[in-house]
Amino acid sequence: MNVEIVTIGDELLLGFTIDTNSGFLGRELASLGVTVARHTTCGDDVGIIVETLREAINRTGAVITTGGLGPTADDMTVEAVAKLFDRELVRDDSIAQWLEQRWIAYARKGPMPVSNYKQAMIPRGAEIIANPVGSAPGVLVTDERGRWVATLPGVPREARTMFTESLRPRIAALAGEGTVVRSMTLHTIGVGESSIADKLGELGKGVNGLSLAFIPGIA
Amino acid sequence: MNVEIVTIGDELLLGFTIDTNSGFLGRELASLGVTVARHTTCGDDVGIIVETLREAINRTGAVITTGGLGPTADDMTVEAVAKLFDRELVRDDSIAQWLEQRWIAYARKGPMPVSNYKQAMIPRGAEIIANPVGSAPGVLVTDERGRWVATLPGVPREARTMFTESLRPRIAALAGEGTVVRSMTLHTIGVGESSIADKLGELGKGVNGLSLAFIPGIA
Repeated sequence: MNVEIVTIGDELLLGFTIDTNSGFLGRELASLGVTVARHTTCGDDVGIIVETLREAINRTGAVITTGGLGPTADDMTVEAVAKLFDRELVRDDSIAQWLEQRWIAYARKGPMPVSNYKQAMIPRGAEIIANPVGSAPGVLVTDERGRWVATLPGVPREARTMFTESLRPRIAALAGEGTVVRSMTLHTIGVGESSIADKLGELGKGVNGLSLAFIPGIA
Repeated sequence: MNVEIVTIGDELLLGFTIDTNSGFLGRELASLGVTVARHTTCGDDVGIIVETLREAINRTGAVITTGGLGPTADDMTVEAVAKLFDRELVRDDSIAQWLEQRWIAYARKGPMPVSNYKQAMIPRGAEIIANPVGSAPGVLVTDERGRWVATLPGVPREARTMFTESLRPRIAALAGEGTVVRSMTLHTIGVGESSIADKLGELGKGVNGLSLAFIPGIA
């Protein structure tokens, strides 16, 4: 099973934030036997997000996004997913109510800002990915052909918790008992990677579906 | 001026290595007024690298890669760049000689491994991006329409040094006196991003070409 990761946010392209979510997802997915075929980072522009998602879903049929789930105008991921699947955005009352309760629980003064209600808008028919550690719920949208996009927040703690609690079991079920990706690290010291490659000869190109990567350390 | 970044390596998709090169390049390019339009990570497969590079160059005409410049079989970036531009790989004697001198200077025993000579193979007509801190030279290949791909190694210290010393001045000249990307961070404390967005109203969506990003901190 192949999945693509799309990380969304101008701050990633500008290098203000270093993306650790895609690495986390890569490790988790590999442990489920799922291959990350490609990872793309795009900026906060709804047209570009739709285009990026369309290319990704056309290649693999399965996309996980991070970022762009907040309540502000620069958060456009859910709108883009709705456009991608040609579904309207509808208010989910259960999310709205949960956001209000969360607002009160955190003893915020005054009524909940109007902006927050944006986070209750989800594509029609989407499943909600609950966020137990933040205010941004994710969505899982599946089309009639079984292709899907799942959205996670950009804040690493939230993305990790939501993936582990909600998305991982779903993907494990979809991936089934198929391929398992196993990997092993052999540490070497002394001669460089080229000397080792020379010694390995043809073996160094990988055999029997085994691929070999030489990763020079920074000693 | 728009540029795309393509980072190459199975270890990135598998999450063994966290990519910090794209963040560095994003910050550096922004300071030159150059926008990173998209960043893609792909694995060590020459066909997929060519496809990823082709999509990127068709969108922006300017691509910087990191990774896949080593001497071993899993390093395929230069071969992919040659295929992209339909140029043959030719041995560059100045690189071969430099590699041999470097081998001796580091007091390695015996003759230089045959694998190392792979790093002297460059696409015909490519300019060499010298690597003063490692063994992997980069190349800059420009086609007759002025579209270009520049390759940097994956090891951050090498990528940073080569970008700063060789590529940055080239890109600065290409970018000219055009747009400058200026950014400013306003730190806030107390109310959340949604309350601030509510107060800002339409201003929160950005005005006069100014875009505004709300980045929740993890306090």
